[in-house]
Amino acid sequence: MKIALAQLNYTIADIVGNKEKIIVALNKAKESAADLVVFSELSICAYPPDDLLDYPHFISNCIQAVEEIAKHAIGITVILGSPTFNESKIGRRLYNSACILQDGIVKHTVHKTLLPTYDVFNEARYFEANSSFKTIEINGKKIAITICEDLWFEMERFNYSGNPLEELSKYRPDLLINISASPFNMHKKIERLNVLKNVCMRYALPLVYVNQTGVHTDLVFDGNSMVINENGSLVLECSNFKEDFQIFDTEKENREIDFKEAEETELMHDALIYGIQNFFGKMGFSKAVLGSSGGIDSAVVQALATRALGAENVKAILMPSDFSSEGSVLDAKKLSENLKNNFEILPISNVFDSFGQTLKPMFEGLEFGLAEENIQARSRAVLLMAISNKFGHILLNTSNKSEMSVGYTTLYGDMCGSLSVMGDLYKTDVYKLARFINKELEIIPYSIIDKAPSAELRPNQKDSDSLPEYDVLDQILELYIEKQKGIEEIVQLGFESALVNRIIGMVNRNEYKRFQAPPIIRIRSKAFGRGRQIPLVSKW
Amino acid sequence: MKIALAQLNYTIADIVGNKEKIIVALNKAKESAADLVVFSELSICAYPPDDLLDYPHFISNCIQAVEEIAKHAIGITVILGSPTFNESKIGRRLYNSACILQDGIVKHTVHKTLLPTYDVFNEARYFEANSSFKTIEINGKKIAITICEDLWFEMERFNYSGNPLEELSKYRPDLLINISASPFNMHKKIERLNVLKNVCMRYALPLVYVNQTGVHTDLVFDGNSMVINENGSLVLECSNFKEDFQIFDTEKENREIDFKEAEETELMHDALIYGIQNFFGKMGFSKAVLGSSGGIDSAVVQALATRALGAENVKAILMPSDFSSEGSVLDAKKLSENLKNNFEILPISNVFDSFGQTLKPMFEGLEFGLAEENIQARSRAVLLMAISNKFGHILLNTSNKSEMSVGYTTLYGDMCGSLSVMGDLYKTDVYKLARFINKELEIIPYSIIDKAPSAELRPNQKDSDSLPEYDVLDQILELYIEKQKGIEEIVQLGFESALVNRIIGMVNRNEYKRFQAPPIIRIRSKAFGRGRQIPLVSKW
Repeated sequence: MKIALAQLNYTIADIVGNKEKIIVALNKAKESAADLVVFSELSICAYPPDDLLDYPHFISNCIQAVEEIAKHAIGITVILGSPTFNESKIGRRLYNSACILQDGIVKHTVHKTLLPTYDVFNEARYFEANSSFKTIEINGKKIAITICEDLWFEMERFNYSGNPLEELSKYRPDLLINISASPFNMHKKIERLNVLKNVCMRYALPLVYVNQTGVHTDLVFDGNSMVINENGSLVLECSNFKEDFQIFDTEKENREIDFKEAEETELMHDALIYGIQNFFGKMGFSKAVLGSSGGIDSAVVQALATRALGAENVKAILMPSDFSSEGSVLDAKKLSENLKNNFEILPISNVFDSFGQTLKPMFEGLEFGLAEENIQARSRAVLLMAISNKFGHILLNTSNKSEMSVGYTTLYGDMCGSLSVMGDLYKTDVYKLARFINKELEIIPYSIIDKAPSAELRPNQKDSDSLPEYDVLDQILELYIEKQKGIEEIVQLGFESALVNRIIGMVNRNEYKRFQAPPIIRIRSKAFGRGRQIPLVSKW
Repeated sequence: MKIALAQLNYTIADIVGNKEKIIVALNKAKESAADLVVFSELSICAYPPDDLLDYPHFISNCIQAVEEIAKHAIGITVILGSPTFNESKIGRRLYNSACILQDGIVKHTVHKTLLPTYDVFNEARYFEANSSFKTIEINGKKIAITICEDLWFEMERFNYSGNPLEELSKYRPDLLINISASPFNMHKKIERLNVLKNVCMRYALPLVYVNQTGVHTDLVFDGNSMVINENGSLVLECSNFKEDFQIFDTEKENREIDFKEAEETELMHDALIYGIQNFFGKMGFSKAVLGSSGGIDSAVVQALATRALGAENVKAILMPSDFSSEGSVLDAKKLSENLKNNFEILPISNVFDSFGQTLKPMFEGLEFGLAEENIQARSRAVLLMAISNKFGHILLNTSNKSEMSVGYTTLYGDMCGSLSVMGDLYKTDVYKLARFINKELEIIPYSIIDKAPSAELRPNQKDSDSLPEYDVLDQILELYIEKQKGIEEIVQLGFESALVNRIIGMVNRNEYKRFQAPPIIRIRSKAFGRGRQIPLVSKW
């Protein structure tokens, strides 16, 4: 039996577009003489559709599109994902389903059993869990069809009470198929491989695994569809971060292939570029603008945006103030020259003075402080947004996770932007990424990488005036935010108590800034945004 | 048996403070010779604690505090709410529990069965559902203890498959107790009463219902705890929007009392004032600042803030531009005088010109447009935030739901603020509220209420240049956002097709602005924010 793995990049709610994309791949599968073509979870509407699932006509449109695709399922079986209605009066209104199309109709429907509801997942909000199990016969083979989380029954933290494979294995299937929408993070590839291998070995079943690719605002889906044999050996693997289409023939000898263990910084780099490309592509935009300070954060974002969108589509705005060092402006210019980006220099001193004059009735006699620092950051944001509004360029946010964590950032200032490219990268990640970008050529001037980080909002300011060294800070942040350790546990790991208390206090107090942050491309297991819901007003 | 209903206002994660509050009420119940005192759902940590539940030491702290409270449960029984660990290796890690304290210890624990996971509720994210049922004996009576949603088993849309009352009624209880955290919306009071009455009548059981009061950023909890007898008659009712403590004696004759059907505009008014007070009180702030344009939105927010915080704690900033009418400035001044608020006039023309000069290299020769309109709104935001930073005043956002829906608002401009007071009020609600505020005295000058709404960002601009009349707009918005109707359904209700398409297109396109909006005090059944999760990048 020849099985086509169709790893596609769908757009949320673009039911017509997704349908057409599916039909193109379906026809390609037919041309390849495939017996079966498999698409990913909720392929008809892309994953995750979130509360669009609450609109009944959204569901009807999905179902209608699946029926139209079914008309093309002649001489081939199609498995794709769609929300379907729960016809019972009991339980939630919808299922997250795999539809099996044969002979021009929707022949079978299989529902998802394990509904992930943690971190970025929210499926119990919409779906009823499956509780009846069967295999589906395709070309004389008994196939156990599962949906994404159905194979992740052994996750330590979630302790699912059911395991659909236990039920399905009673029917002695020949093959396991899993349609997924499994988001990327830096450590996911190896984790995913291990989970899937263990399923194959435990049940002595080969697995065809089809994941979606593409980015939906914050959520990156790498793809990485694959086939694993009943011994747990990887025998076929699709690309990361792009569409792919491959044929697996169950009757041919399928030799074990090497698992390409990707280097973390490279994955981060590729995921962010894919994130930028998808955001712009799916929104129908082509041009980006960003503030170029001469610091490392904006430099890395500018380099990534250039790789994602092309040099001619990235505009850098240099907005020096009286506190900007001459070196910063020169570095920023050099960066734009290296990247061949168009840039403009718009000094903010006049605007800053003008705010000072306007506020004089209220501020006269008061010392320069946080308010004045923030006026600079916000004046830059007003200029960038004006350029964005005037020319249709999309403003990229250049904040990193370290500064977003502790609030070392100005709300409505440098926190502005339509998309936060690096809001899930600690400062130490940003350095790694800068060096990775410079692997072959000095694209980001080393003077940018090597200088001490500074917000340059008052004379001779350095990040290290207010914050510990980033290698210490980032470890504490990771323990608190991603590993969910408490203060005591972190101190026991060898960090200074006063420091840990101060840092965690800063993280907690700045929840209000992150509440209004742009969407952040997620590359770690716990990112700010939908996956981390912390009360804004609390005594935490 | 004498039962004390303790309707308290907790602070999220303030486990020590909540514990002390509970002990004070417990002692008061003892003094009143009560046999039992009942607190609300998750009272030890306040509801909803969101992802703080993911921190194991948060749970341990809750449990420890409950054990400390238990020491005071001598000669009285206490029922309160806490997260507890699921000791089984199967299922999710936590339960949402009612702890029954007797004889100085935690004698029994009862878990929540129905876990709401829709709109603002997220309980399947954290909790395992209860599946074993029992009654608890207190003072010789068999009590069926339930938690909030456990009584809402008949909600049409959610079709819960289990009904804990069916199970509990097998034990022939004498009394039903429900501890709740049931958030307010404008129509909730009567809905809640009907749901609870139906339960009492169906199972012929009296009900003691204890809800929390207080506001947690966006979520308003009104309180409205009550006792309903086995015939479905209301016999005791606690206050709305404040703490209350009442004793119900099962042995006394309990006559039916009148249900106080509150007027919607009054509820809205009281809920928003409570929302402002709680936000400031729980954050430890006292002073607010806002931009006063002379329009109705800022006028109503200023009046509400004055009622919530006191006239001396509200500062109005008038920031006229060249496009502001003289009337607007006069109206804004008059309003501040009426409210006895301190105000300042900071004209923005110099700042605006200065931005124009700075942008000249890029904008020269281009027409005045959206960019220049937004520069004005954003200049005002920079001024307001500078004042906020300098003096520690908290910026109140003055956007309404109509303009937030269609994006008739400037991101990082008038969308700024720590709290959106009226982001869940349509423009037509704002007018009603203005007239309600003026019920006894002209507080908001009628010249503000009567003039045609305008953003005053270009000469002679009127909202009606870009938008339909608000009474039409608001109906379409309510059908789409709250009733989840599709375009076709709305058109069938008698609205013009082109208009409906245009409006809904605007709502969908402006998801990106709302993504970065401040938290919004929720007063309707579907508010922007946590209860409405719509993909940002989509073809919807």
